[in-house]
Parts: sequence; C-alpha cells; structure tokens
Amino acid sequence: MDDKIRQALLKQVEKEPFAQKFGLKLIDLQEGYAKVGMAFTEDMENIFGMAHGGALFALIDESFEIASNSHGTMAVALNMNINYIASPVKGSYLTAEAKESNKTKKTATYDIRVTDSQNNLIAACQALVYRKDKPLPFLGK
Amino acid sequence: MDDKIRQALLKQVEKEPFAQKFGLKLIDLQEGYAKVGMAFTEDMENIFGMAHGGALFALIDESFEIASNSHGTMAVALNMNINYIASPVKGSYLTAEAKESNKTKKTATYDIRVTDSQNNLIAACQALVYRKDKPLPFLGK
Amino acid sequence: MDDKIRQALLKQVEKEPFAQKFGLKLIDLQEGYAKVGMAFTEDMENIFGMAHGGALFALIDESFEIASNSHGTMAVALNMNINYIASPVKGSYLTAEAKESNKTKKTATYDIRVTDSQNNLIAACQALVYRKDKPLPFLGK
Amino acid sequence: MDDKIRQALLKQVEKEPFAQKFGLKLIDLQEGYAKVGMAFTEDMENIFGMAHGGALFALIDESFEIASNSHGTMAVALNMNINYIASPVKGSYLTAEAKESNKTKKTATYDIRVTDSQNNLIAACQALVYRKDKPLPFLGK
Repeated sequence: MDDKIRQALLKQVEKEPFAQKFGLKLIDLQEGYAKVGMAFTEDMENIFGMAHGGALFALIDESFEIASNSHGTMAVALNMNINYIASPVKGSYLTAEAKESNKTKKTATYDIRVTDSQNNLIAACQALVYRKDKPLPFLGK
Repeated sequence: MDDKIRQALLKQVEKEPFAQKFGLKLIDLQEGYAKVGMAFTEDMENIFGMAHGGALFALIDESFEIASNSHGTMAVALNMNINYIASPVKGSYLTAEAKESNKTKKTATYDIRVTDSQNNLIAACQALVYRKDKPLPFLGK
Repeated sequence: MDDKIRQALLKQVEKEPFAQKFGLKLIDLQEGYAKVGMAFTEDMENIFGMAHGGALFALIDESFEIASNSHGTMAVALNMNINYIASPVKGSYLTAEAKESNKTKKTATYDIRVTDSQNNLIAACQALVYRKDKPLPFLGK
Repeated sequence: MDDKIRQALLKQVEKEPFAQKFGLKLIDLQEGYAKVGMAFTEDMENIFGMAHGGALFALIDESFEIASNSHGTMAVALNMNINYIASPVKGSYLTAEAKESNKTKKTATYDIRVTDSQNNLIAACQALVYRKDKPLPFLGK
C-alpha cells in the first residue's frame, strides 16, 4: 500500500483515544487488511465475569476502521453484524483480522475474525462501509 | 419484575468493570427492558475525532445485556446487528433503550435504539440471545 | 403520500414477476410504510416440510422494496438482517409490515415484522438501503 | 461425509418444492459445505427489472440449509445477515457456496458467497443455526 497512507494511519491509530482505552495494538496493515491485538484484562469483564461483548466489539471495530480507511479515502461504517462464538479465557491475548471481501466506488465489505492465542474462533463479523470521495483528513499532516 | 432480580442486577451492573470503564448508568429496568445512559467523552473518539463505533456499541451492549438477563435466568449473546445512522456531537449524552421483541424458551430477540439528548436516532440494533436454563449466578448472594 | 407515486408503485408491484411467483399482495402503502400479504402454500416447503426461509424472505423483501421506494426516488438494498422466530403453520396467511425507522439523504433503515393470522411473530428483520438521487424509472409512464 | 446422509439429502433436495420453484440445483455437497446453482430468469425480476433480493436469498438459503444439515442432525436457522454487492446481469447463472466457519454442540455459523458466471461477487451472507439433538427425519427412509 501507499507508504504515506500507511505512516499517517499508524500515527493516527497510535494516538487514538479509544485505542489507548483498550490497549489496542496494530499488528499488521495492508491495503484492505488490518490485524489488531488486545489483551483481555479484568476491566473488560461483564456482570458474569466473562469478556464483555463490548470489549470484543472494540477490538473488531478497530480492525474494521483501519482496513476500511487503508485506501486513503474516508470510509464510514454503515452496518456491522457479529456472531459470538466462544468466550475467551481470562488473560487471553485476542487478535482481530479484517479482510476486505469487496470494494466498489461507493461501498466496501469486510470479514472480521477474532481468535485467541490458541487460535480458537471467538467471534465472526461481517461489516459494510460507505466510501466517501474525500482523502483521509490527517493525510499530509 | 421480581424485586430480588432487580436488586441483584442493579448491584451487579454498578460494580461491573466494563460499565465503570465507560461511565454507563442504568436509568430504567423492567422485565425485558433496560435503558442505559453514557456521556460521550473525548476518550471515546476515533481516528477522525468522532465517536468510535466501539463506544456506541458498549452502550448498546450494556442495555442488551441487562434487558436479556432481566428474567432471572442467564442469557448469552448469539448475534448483534447494528446500523450506524448519525454521528453524535461531542459532549452529547447518549441513551440506549433495549426492548424485548420476542421470547421463547430457548431464545429471545431485542430491538435497541441509541438517541442523543435532542432525541436524534444515532444507531439501531437487532440482537439475539440463547437463554440458558440457569438462574443468574449472583442471585441470592 | 404523493398519489402519482402511489399509483405507479401499485401498478408496478401488480405486474412484478417475483410478486406473482409468490402470490404477494400489497395490502397497505404509505410514505415509508408497506404491508404485504402471502398465503403459505405447499410449493414453499423446505426439506422438512416447513416454510422455507426463502419464502418468508420473499415476503419480507417485497414489503421492504415497496416501503423504501415510496418516496418516489430509487432505493437500493445494501443490507438485511433477519431473525427467524417461529415456524408458520401450513395454510397460514402471513403478513409483513415494513416501517421506516430513519431516512437521511443517502440512506434509510427499516424494521420489518412478519406475523401469522393469529398475530404470532414469525420473523423480524432490520434493513438498510442506499438512496439514489433518481426518480423511480416507471414514474410518469 | 457419511454416504447415507449424503444420499438422503440429495434425494430430499431433489423433491423439495421450494428448490423446484427456483430451479435450484445442488452442485456439490460435503460435510459443512454446499454449492447450489440457479439460472436467473425473468420470473425473478423486481419492479425495476433487476434480480429480486428474494431470488438471491432463495439461492443463498438453499446452500445454507443443505450445509447446516449435512452433519445428519437437524439445524434450524436463527439469523441471516446479507450484504447485496452487485446486481446480476439478466440470463446469468448464479452459484452460492456455503462454508461452515464454526460448529459447537448447540450452534454453527456459515459464510455464504453468491457469484455469477464471470466470478463477480453478487452477495455475501453470514448465517447462524441452532443445532438440535435430533437426526434428520428423512434419514433411513
């Protein structure tokens, strides 16, 4: 992918408030693809002491956001559909991979998979963006 | 709804780590219904300085979790589908309402709406749980 | 709603090949709203002799198509999410109601409910369209 | 896969009323996998003369039904989420492939892709079943 876009995205994700809140780390980035990691910590537990759906979603959404903006123009999330498959074990390190399944001028779709360190499938997501005809606002800064 | 279940849920949500992380407040609770509020703060911004999809989802998921467990038996999330409709303005106070649309012995479905303080629709969600034949583990504690 | 749009849609639905294939009847039509009926017949059975998911979907999709085109400009389906709730009984008359939950310049969302003649909820659907800036092609014909 | 299950499914699909209605052909069948074909004919057109969403869905749903029942026990559809990506050209021959992405004792998930004869992606679907602890009723008949 374009190196200027890559550097701008890496820098922007690093300082993103939400990514810091969850300790989200960008592991790999290519055009139409992103891999993000997150340690499942105690502040992510729900009323049953299991991983909160919202924590898994934070990880999923981050990989989706990065993959869909990797073409250098702004992508806006329209729809996300998630299947919860297994509960991660406490202390797990979780990884989300977002892969572009299609891209047209106006829309693009992504498949996102969350796995734990034993490669168990934790959640699967299908997501859709509207693609704006505008460059990423932080490009060239 | 059963007062014992209500008190147990209120207490459990109050000490839930994830709810604390996002400042989620349970505003109303009835059987099959929950209303949760969240101030949209700067630590919830994404790479564009807008509300991160994951922050909206945290709010949605909390209302869903509470509504689906309000019958006193454990509910496990299977699927969530979310349409992102508008970006909330910085400093907004957001509210999610989860309403049960159907309940059988094994599954139940919910409609969830997120609105801002001007009552603009921010996101709409449809969600599905598997209902276990087990009482909430923290009941009676 | 605009009477010219209404008449054009009524006429177009009446001669739609797909609607004829399933015996779909437009029962009510307003701006952002459509109600469609279908008798569940034997040619709609699946390998278990129950209603094929595809038959329920045909009914759902028809109400969605009509409601989303009721503003007089072309709407194109982007995403549909459906929860199957109960199996209709053989010989049931099923009804789908599509209600617009939101509309912006570029997109609109719909909630669709399928019920049987005893008013049991059979399926619930959430759907999203992209709104083109083009009048319905068959308007004014 | 088990040959008895394969033969029973092949036979059952062949006589399924809904499959006959759409001219659906089972092209390939393995455990957790099914490939189904359909010629896009004029009786599948919508009010714009394009492929009706319901026709694409019929094809998708058939591949999903077969893949999810290929283990020899009954699977019941709970949720389907579909992204419409491109309109097929009139006269196209469409193919849906359903692949199991996960299977537990109680649930299983599937990714389904519809492509045309030029291998263009037409629609993508993510689907979820509840797995009953019952053999297929037509096994052994």
